[in-house]
Amino acid sequence: MGDKEISQAVISRLPRYFRYLGELKDEGVERISSQELSGLMQVTASQIRQDFNNFGGFGQQGYGYNVEYLYHEIGKILGLDRDHQLIVVGAGNLGTALCNYSNFQRRGFYFAGVFDKNPELIGKHVGQLQVRPMEEMEEFVKMHTIDIAVLCIPKTSAVDVADRLVRCGVKAFWNFAHCDLNVPEGIVVENVHLSDSLIKLSYNLSQT
Amino acid sequence: MGDKEISQAVISRLPRYFRYLGELKDEGVERISSQELSGLMQVTASQIRQDFNNFGGFGQQGYGYNVEYLYHEIGKILGLDRDHQLIVVGAGNLGTALCNYSNFQRRGFYFAGVFDKNPELIGKHVGQLQVRPMEEMEEFVKMHTIDIAVLCIPKTSAVDVADRLVRCGVKAFWNFAHCDLNVPEGIVVENVHLSDSLIKLSYNLSQT
Repeated sequence: MGDKEISQAVISRLPRYFRYLGELKDEGVERISSQELSGLMQVTASQIRQDFNNFGGFGQQGYGYNVEYLYHEIGKILGLDRDHQLIVVGAGNLGTALCNYSNFQRRGFYFAGVFDKNPELIGKHVGQLQVRPMEEMEEFVKMHTIDIAVLCIPKTSAVDVADRLVRCGVKAFWNFAHCDLNVPEGIVVENVHLSDSLIKLSYNLSQT
Repeated sequence: MGDKEISQAVISRLPRYFRYLGELKDEGVERISSQELSGLMQVTASQIRQDFNNFGGFGQQGYGYNVEYLYHEIGKILGLDRDHQLIVVGAGNLGTALCNYSNFQRRGFYFAGVFDKNPELIGKHVGQLQVRPMEEMEEFVKMHTIDIAVLCIPKTSAVDVADRLVRCGVKAFWNFAHCDLNVPEGIVVENVHLSDSLIKLSYNLSQT
């Protein structure tokens, strides 16, 4: 993998395939055809085959896909065959909610630390963690080889905090701050702009 | 508007235009060219012009766009010229975080009620609201003409709760449950699948 560029549209669909295949696997389903998967996921079978062909196809057509094999192959493509160490910056309700999702840990995403600048929150327990002051962030990131930082802070501080984290080796940002981050080449960002998502819902509602 | 079908890809970009134009307006910028907006937003000027042409273009090229006019026009397209009444189902950390975002209210999204099935949470204050029991949900929705429900509940109950809400008139779902909702025609859903988003980040990280 990684030899040819796969479009972000295809990449965006992979986690959903992974989710459905995980559920099928848990239900004990061994094989599934692209037609069956299509019915389940409400995408066309041709879309599924096209998406999978980006990665070599994963199995014989007609005979269907081996669910467990496909689940693991897509997991590998998604980088889920290795663990990730994360920190959360911002210990408000959203940061707390994310630290407490057991689902992430099941996928190999380990929350190693949580930071906040509010002195009243420092020392507070968030799941298994205790909130640490921002001054300790850089050293913590280096000591624990953190690769992903989750930003749950206002947009006014997000850019500065991201700069500090890039300088001490963070390679990926899961950004909930309501702004876009301009990061150097080689650093990846996944934005979750909740307002944008709600506004998109408002548009679609206005069209009904 | 609404005469021709606009692609969801264009719609997905509109909230981001709206956000940048709001910031420009707040900074007192009166006019902006597609080239300047392009530099700011890191999309091509041709993309911007193409997107805007879906809605008639919004102004003279060369002379640039009137920021305030464009901001209001895009807001109208997005349905932000009317208010929305929302309920949140699930008063955990995520539901609490969403109720407390003042930013949503500024855009006309009013959180009118929050519901949970956990007896220990009922009566608890979440922002200005008090958590209500699930049994009161249907009557509340009808009394307050709720149009949007925010689902912050596990996937095991999301489908049932959505069915109940559709039956009492909810037209739109902002779905944070880790499953897809199958809703009748005319009901709109915007999913925020946080695990899928984190997994996409993991993929992009694995490619660096």
